[in-house]
Amino acid sequence: MDERILYPSFCGINTFLRAPYVKLDEIKEGDYVVSGVPYDVTIGTRPGPRYAPNAIREETRHFIYHLCAIDGEVIDVCTKKRMLAPPKEIVKDIGDIRVYPTDVCKTTDSVASTISKIVEKGATPVTLGGDHYVAYPVVKGFEDGFKKRMGRPVKIGYIHVDSHMDMYDENDTWGKYYQGSPARRISEFESVDLKNMVFVGLNGTTGVEGYDYAVNGGATLYTIDDIRREGIAEIMEKAIAIASKGCDTVYVTIDIDVLDNAFGCGTGCYVFGGITSVELLEIGSILGKAPIIGGVDMVEVSPPCDTTGSTTRLAASTLINFLKPRIFEFR
Amino acid sequence: MDERILYPSFCGINTFLRAPYVKLDEIKEGDYVVSGVPYDVTIGTRPGPRYAPNAIREETRHFIYHLCAIDGEVIDVCTKKRMLAPPKEIVKDIGDIRVYPTDVCKTTDSVASTISKIVEKGATPVTLGGDHYVAYPVVKGFEDGFKKRMGRPVKIGYIHVDSHMDMYDENDTWGKYYQGSPARRISEFESVDLKNMVFVGLNGTTGVEGYDYAVNGGATLYTIDDIRREGIAEIMEKAIAIASKGCDTVYVTIDIDVLDNAFGCGTGCYVFGGITSVELLEIGSILGKAPIIGGVDMVEVSPPCDTTGSTTRLAASTLINFLKPRIFEFR
Amino acid sequence: MDERILYPSFCGINTFLRAPYVKLDEIKEGDYVVSGVPYDVTIGTRPGPRYAPNAIREETRHFIYHLCAIDGEVIDVCTKKRMLAPPKEIVKDIGDIRVYPTDVCKTTDSVASTISKIVEKGATPVTLGGDHYVAYPVVKGFEDGFKKRMGRPVKIGYIHVDSHMDMYDENDTWGKYYQGSPARRISEFESVDLKNMVFVGLNGTTGVEGYDYAVNGGATLYTIDDIRREGIAEIMEKAIAIASKGCDTVYVTIDIDVLDNAFGCGTGCYVFGGITSVELLEIGSILGKAPIIGGVDMVEVSPPCDTTGSTTRLAASTLINFLKPRIFEFR
Amino acid sequence: MDERILYPSFCGINTFLRAPYVKLDEIKEGDYVVSGVPYDVTIGTRPGPRYAPNAIREETRHFIYHLCAIDGEVIDVCTKKRMLAPPKEIVKDIGDIRVYPTDVCKTTDSVASTISKIVEKGATPVTLGGDHYVAYPVVKGFEDGFKKRMGRPVKIGYIHVDSHMDMYDENDTWGKYYQGSPARRISEFESVDLKNMVFVGLNGTTGVEGYDYAVNGGATLYTIDDIRREGIAEIMEKAIAIASKGCDTVYVTIDIDVLDNAFGCGTGCYVFGGITSVELLEIGSILGKAPIIGGVDMVEVSPPCDTTGSTTRLAASTLINFLKPRIFEFR
Amino acid sequence: MDERILYPSFCGINTFLRAPYVKLDEIKEGDYVVSGVPYDVTIGTRPGPRYAPNAIREETRHFIYHLCAIDGEVIDVCTKKRMLAPPKEIVKDIGDIRVYPTDVCKTTDSVASTISKIVEKGATPVTLGGDHYVAYPVVKGFEDGFKKRMGRPVKIGYIHVDSHMDMYDENDTWGKYYQGSPARRISEFESVDLKNMVFVGLNGTTGVEGYDYAVNGGATLYTIDDIRREGIAEIMEKAIAIASKGCDTVYVTIDIDVLDNAFGCGTGCYVFGGITSVELLEIGSILGKAPIIGGVDMVEVSPPCDTTGSTTRLAASTLINFLKPRIFEFR
Amino acid sequence: MDERILYPSFCGINTFLRAPYVKLDEIKEGDYVVSGVPYDVTIGTRPGPRYAPNAIREETRHFIYHLCAIDGEVIDVCTKKRMLAPPKEIVKDIGDIRVYPTDVCKTTDSVASTISKIVEKGATPVTLGGDHYVAYPVVKGFEDGFKKRMGRPVKIGYIHVDSHMDMYDENDTWGKYYQGSPARRISEFESVDLKNMVFVGLNGTTGVEGYDYAVNGGATLYTIDDIRREGIAEIMEKAIAIASKGCDTVYVTIDIDVLDNAFGCGTGCYVFGGITSVELLEIGSILGKAPIIGGVDMVEVSPPCDTTGSTTRLAASTLINFLKPRIFEFR
Ligand SMILES: [Mn+2]
Ligand SMILES: [Mn+2]
Ligand SMILES: [Mn+2]
Ligand SMILES: [Mn+2]
Ligand SMILES: [Mn+2]
Ligand SMILES: [Mn+2]
Ligand SMILES: [Mn+2]
Ligand SMILES: [Mn+2]
Ligand SMILES: [Mn+2]
Ligand SMILES: [Mn+2]
Ligand SMILES: [Mn+2]
Ligand SMILES: [Mn+2]
Repeated sequence: MDERILYPSFCGINTFLRAPYVKLDEIKEGDYVVSGVPYDVTIGTRPGPRYAPNAIREETRHFIYHLCAIDGEVIDVCTKKRMLAPPKEIVKDIGDIRVYPTDVCKTTDSVASTISKIVEKGATPVTLGGDHYVAYPVVKGFEDGFKKRMGRPVKIGYIHVDSHMDMYDENDTWGKYYQGSPARRISEFESVDLKNMVFVGLNGTTGVEGYDYAVNGGATLYTIDDIRREGIAEIMEKAIAIASKGCDTVYVTIDIDVLDNAFGCGTGCYVFGGITSVELLEIGSILGKAPIIGGVDMVEVSPPCDTTGSTTRLAASTLINFLKPRIFEFR
Repeated sequence: MDERILYPSFCGINTFLRAPYVKLDEIKEGDYVVSGVPYDVTIGTRPGPRYAPNAIREETRHFIYHLCAIDGEVIDVCTKKRMLAPPKEIVKDIGDIRVYPTDVCKTTDSVASTISKIVEKGATPVTLGGDHYVAYPVVKGFEDGFKKRMGRPVKIGYIHVDSHMDMYDENDTWGKYYQGSPARRISEFESVDLKNMVFVGLNGTTGVEGYDYAVNGGATLYTIDDIRREGIAEIMEKAIAIASKGCDTVYVTIDIDVLDNAFGCGTGCYVFGGITSVELLEIGSILGKAPIIGGVDMVEVSPPCDTTGSTTRLAASTLINFLKPRIFEFR
Repeated sequence: MDERILYPSFCGINTFLRAPYVKLDEIKEGDYVVSGVPYDVTIGTRPGPRYAPNAIREETRHFIYHLCAIDGEVIDVCTKKRMLAPPKEIVKDIGDIRVYPTDVCKTTDSVASTISKIVEKGATPVTLGGDHYVAYPVVKGFEDGFKKRMGRPVKIGYIHVDSHMDMYDENDTWGKYYQGSPARRISEFESVDLKNMVFVGLNGTTGVEGYDYAVNGGATLYTIDDIRREGIAEIMEKAIAIASKGCDTVYVTIDIDVLDNAFGCGTGCYVFGGITSVELLEIGSILGKAPIIGGVDMVEVSPPCDTTGSTTRLAASTLINFLKPRIFEFR
Repeated sequence: MDERILYPSFCGINTFLRAPYVKLDEIKEGDYVVSGVPYDVTIGTRPGPRYAPNAIREETRHFIYHLCAIDGEVIDVCTKKRMLAPPKEIVKDIGDIRVYPTDVCKTTDSVASTISKIVEKGATPVTLGGDHYVAYPVVKGFEDGFKKRMGRPVKIGYIHVDSHMDMYDENDTWGKYYQGSPARRISEFESVDLKNMVFVGLNGTTGVEGYDYAVNGGATLYTIDDIRREGIAEIMEKAIAIASKGCDTVYVTIDIDVLDNAFGCGTGCYVFGGITSVELLEIGSILGKAPIIGGVDMVEVSPPCDTTGSTTRLAASTLINFLKPRIFEFR
Repeated sequence: MDERILYPSFCGINTFLRAPYVKLDEIKEGDYVVSGVPYDVTIGTRPGPRYAPNAIREETRHFIYHLCAIDGEVIDVCTKKRMLAPPKEIVKDIGDIRVYPTDVCKTTDSVASTISKIVEKGATPVTLGGDHYVAYPVVKGFEDGFKKRMGRPVKIGYIHVDSHMDMYDENDTWGKYYQGSPARRISEFESVDLKNMVFVGLNGTTGVEGYDYAVNGGATLYTIDDIRREGIAEIMEKAIAIASKGCDTVYVTIDIDVLDNAFGCGTGCYVFGGITSVELLEIGSILGKAPIIGGVDMVEVSPPCDTTGSTTRLAASTLINFLKPRIFEFR
Repeated sequence: MDERILYPSFCGINTFLRAPYVKLDEIKEGDYVVSGVPYDVTIGTRPGPRYAPNAIREETRHFIYHLCAIDGEVIDVCTKKRMLAPPKEIVKDIGDIRVYPTDVCKTTDSVASTISKIVEKGATPVTLGGDHYVAYPVVKGFEDGFKKRMGRPVKIGYIHVDSHMDMYDENDTWGKYYQGSPARRISEFESVDLKNMVFVGLNGTTGVEGYDYAVNGGATLYTIDDIRREGIAEIMEKAIAIASKGCDTVYVTIDIDVLDNAFGCGTGCYVFGGITSVELLEIGSILGKAPIIGGVDMVEVSPPCDTTGSTTRLAASTLINFLKPRIFEFR
């Protein structure tokens, strides 16, 4: 164990959970590969998510103590489950993927090709956005890498946790590739069928064109009212089942603005009446326990809007909840 | 449609929902007239609400996209109701009403006469405070304009959404006209009967003199405990019924400090244990659907205290929820 | 009544609830003695609680108006209980206790001896931390003073309201005396039995060594899941009963990080999924009504992290809820 | 005089110096036309200048009192010159020009065509950036409009006040059109000769390719050392003379990062050792008095970096110094 | 020596230089009496100075160590003068004077009568504003107390250190008693002759009515250009000489906005091109050494604008420079 | 060249100038070794410097573009010197050195032994504090490593750039090892003679005991008045000459509070009347050109106080000025 894992939280070069900072070719099968996509020129509201990758990394240092710096065992006080600490050394941080702020296409290629290589090696990408546009190149790379790994056509399910559908086709200011369209673009992938696309946390109003396109194509929409009625656990289980149906793997994108803004001020495209911090944490845990989930991202965290830091912390906590069942050995 | 409505949220001169910026004499019957009263010298705690009118206007730009910049239709994902977009061009912004920081009486006259003119024309005033004192001149003008419009004595109901009663008669430091007394002053109007005054969201302690005056006079008091027990929808329906009884119209004043401070840090006179963001949004929606409501204000939003911006956003969202059923055409 | 109690909240030299600023030897039996321990070098996360004593004092000024500056009576709008205002003059502020940032032992002695003198006189210490380490010297002084006052060995119960157990024995960086160990150190006191130690609000993971030590020794652990299941009132009543069993008095330490971070961003060692603001207020009220509680502290409030100010306000509100039943006369 | 000009600085809808908010076709010959270009995706450092147009407008309200709200005369206490107040009604605000964050070319066309129309009418554009890239489309439109107005080929001088030359030809990440290249692109215009391009305030290091291109082509470079040696007034007079030589008009672009960062923290691409606030003000005044100057912009002001607000205030003050000799009548 | 003077700067109840917090009747002849006037409703720009008294007090704690907590001697490293430490116990803090935000006249009386009592006892008032309006009631009380002490009519000189003259007679929004008029009102006092009124640091434009009134009445005006030409020391010596001429005492009011805003962002009514921090410090020192100066205030410090804290620190430093030659014993 | 050096400044894992992040045993002779000492419990004022190492690293990314990401040449526009870019690969970042907040001695050993190993290898330590206490363990390690490298007793000169002497022997609260004593402790080293200790930038008052000790022992003191009189370049040349006299090497410690607080708000122990940003930059450049300087540190930068970020930027700029003549090849 590198002694530097023992340092107090305010010390040390900043990587995700103090994971080793490696190059792409050092990735191995079974790894969980954290990368950042500091890109937000495609955001319709306030810029900021470009700062999220390093901000989320920084908040993970808070977890070092209980999760990584103890040599022996930790216990979850609620479930009373015991986990061997520190976790398996399968989390790697490759830093940020190169972006081109004035060239959306070049950025798309850069991100997609990096993610493709990670997935082709049999590793799981854990991607830190960026605005929600980045889900498009990430899933593009995910599809490409997965096909290469399998050596055959694949079927990919998709869960979109968000207050918004992001199903616009084109926008007068932003064009076809921006924060409002990733789900639409992904729905056009050959490996993705609208019937395996599930939206969780929808809230507010949206344009009817994209809405009708999704509903008529067979997508499943869970609104915040559905969550209030059935509970987040129930909804997530259904979402995983529908997204998995007939698929090789499922990709999950989490837009932090699914939170009620009073629970997470640090995002540009705000909503009130969304889910709570407890519910988001539970989404992380449930996804972590579902082996079919092959990739995840956390987008739209905006440190300049996050004046309390609480949203960034919650994003880090949610990703760690996702990783916990996968990187720890339980007894 | 003015092309400027298509601009991203960080662009453009700042009016409420990008409504036209007009002079008082351009107001027409049926309009919803937004004005600001940037006044807070009557606040007992920390100054700040003088900045609220422009701050709330700024946050409404966030809604431009889904509500105004789409040519066709939008859908509410929860209710599945479809609305024609953009809304009817009946929202107008007259900017701020003149105030005199060192002269409370002159400010009272300035505000009251402006609101009176709006109401006399048959338009609905949507007023952005300011501290809660401004409700007094606003309701004064509301009464005056309504009498002129009707050409006869009128009866006005009054709903006070607030953690506090604001029923003090006089204060040793502030005198008779300040943040703590508007409901008392309004109770003295000839058109207002204590039996039509309803308080929603009361919480904490208050002086007994004002409390006894209100209760003995027949006012209705719904505390936060009542809301916890019966639900906000039920309480609001009752409040509207009681305030409307025998009245021509009902005026509603919303003090943002009715929120639990953890849900809305941006106000000076804080309370914990108040309502949540979801409940405040619902108040806005319920009021919007009640045609008897003839005027509304939002007070005590304090941008300097609102370090996350979340409270100002929620104030804007609540007012838009009030306006939605009134300015959109549904199909 | 000192006229200065009438001043608006932004005026005046800053003491707790504008209590008189006195020296230790002016304390009398029955007093509630506020002191600050601006110490945080023992914090494993971000420094900040050293600023909490003055920040909490400052927020208490908000309560002056309804609680202190009225000559007559105030009423609680929910319970409809009437209290004589202003309160009895038994709250005193002795300012801050001397600390030695580079010398933990000397600080321990300084704090313990001051608290001991307060308790020996028959007064109740209300201590403003500081990080959670300060609970150790405070309870040490509490035990010592209480023994002196009684002139015999005593039995002290202990309630630890916190997301964390703070039961570590030793840490590689911080040693034996730091934020993570106060409950362990207190468990070693002669007057304290693990069977009278109750933890309320536990959440997340912890090292097994301390956990097993506590559980095997007979300590009671209430997790956030227990609170969700049974309600905070029920849990607190049980906690008081268990801590009181066979004891002369009970000491309560409240670590503000028991809150979900979305309800209280202003603390260094954050947790999501903790209790809400309403629940913390209720803890304050329940403790205030239990005469066996002989001392209380509020720790880990971190003003530099508290960018909204809301956490500091809630800390002040909770302590005032504790004091209300003790310093007011009800009718 | 619109009464709204009398309002305190914290009131009112926000336009530049409370100028009328007009549409492009209301512009007249002789007007000073303020517009914003809220664009910063072409910035290599931290986004922020997209917020500058409204932030600069807001700071101009500070000047309302002494400059606009007095009916009669004001006096400059240092020069003892008397000016008739309020100023001539020739300042107009057309709001912001439409931008396309993900499409640099479309933005270029939008900005250039708007500025062209202003200049063609014989008005003077006063443009609020945006990052320094926006100088390229602005000068492009300036050239186009000026040619149309004159009905013949023209010669345009160019003064670039900046710590940086912005003479890069192409960048690996940003391409040819970004913050680092506007002077290069402008040097390629048919109406602009490198011999009439003057740089004022250069500081630090730069790539040799662009440097040699400029120097070899005959551009004039005044570094901060030249300013320290000769004084800003002397340097500016020389700069105007060189830029004017044989030209019909001169365009001036001011990059706020010409300031030492200690005098202006609110910009992304910081420099220490730059000019002081007093020197920047003097640049504004000297330019205002030179009738050959036909257009000016202020770029790289970054409100999110400007935590003190002082940089934005200084930008507003400098532009007002430019306008003063042109919009006031002196006696 | 109270041990509390040894505390680190982040500890302890907050008084000016940790002076004793006393009541008005404990003041003795020869004392330096600090009081706050937390009043800013008379400010034409942004509210904030109401927070200055406590903020300035807080910054004085920084000086405790070198000035107060050493038992023996300190040395000024530049002048090599040695001073006996701690200083004489003649600094007293009476807290804040009562203010009435909605009643300017009542506030005037409250402030004037308190200052009068201080001066009547032969003590020197050191007053912490508040906006510049507070200079009016302070000087009113100063005149009254001084007359009572002397038992005869008196002559008072007045030095106004400010970028602005504050010589307006009446303002359409604010009336006769506000931030822009204190020098005008003071010029009307019977003990004050315009020929003994000196303005130091004037900058920018002002209305001609007040300007002509002052100049024609014989007031002396030193602009920033005069300071640049002659040096601040020379100007201050002249100012003291003119103000003293034929007078019993001289009162000095210091408006912090005399600073260039780049040297002091923390004030509402900003100016660029003003004096530097070094020059303001020198003003404090020079005044301290002139025994004729019988009272001083520091106004317009605005903590909410002072995001760096630097302006408040400089205000504290300047006042301490004023006090140093008066409260220390030199060897 | 690692492609990651081309990334925009907001991307990438954060090391000093994007230097390789290496372990101690990868250091080679001739390297410049950056390390952080995130320690500030020994600070008498406000905590914060523990955050400086990462904050300074982050600001160095700003320089990547002109200094590192260009393949070829850059030119200094003032001196017209051309440098080959990118620089030689001799800058290395070893991250932070382990610290023990509650154990000053253990921290001292940890820091000293790390620095010793760097120096023993023939590399130059560039250390990022931490408060000024850290200069003591750093110079201790510097002496030790240098002796080991030379294999004989050595003589070390010492330049202390600071507003303060830091020559206290012992303090009642902090003891012998804290922010106020490093120069005293260093003066006791066997390799350091007071006659080779030079202080640059002294300002304000200090206790006489330390002052007399230094002066009587032969130390050289340059105050801010000396700098104003002779210029910073002259003073620095003298300082280097005196510190070098008869010495093998010279160590330089730079306390950022040598700046006037208006030029650098981001430090805890503030001074007004200190040096300017231009002067500090010049200190960096002069030191870089003096080959005798064998080690340097930058201390007391406090990011939580540095609300503008400007102080941290200036610290980074100054260190880069030190490195420039040493890591670049000039033509
Ligand atoms: Mn989304
Ligand atoms: Mn979304
Ligand atoms: Mn209210
Ligand atoms: Mn209220
Ligand atoms: Mn704890
Ligand atoms: Mn805890
Ligand atoms: Mn530029
Ligand atoms: Mn530049
Ligand atoms: Mn003034
Ligand atoms: Mn002024
Ligand atoms: Mn130092
Ligand atoms: Mn220092």
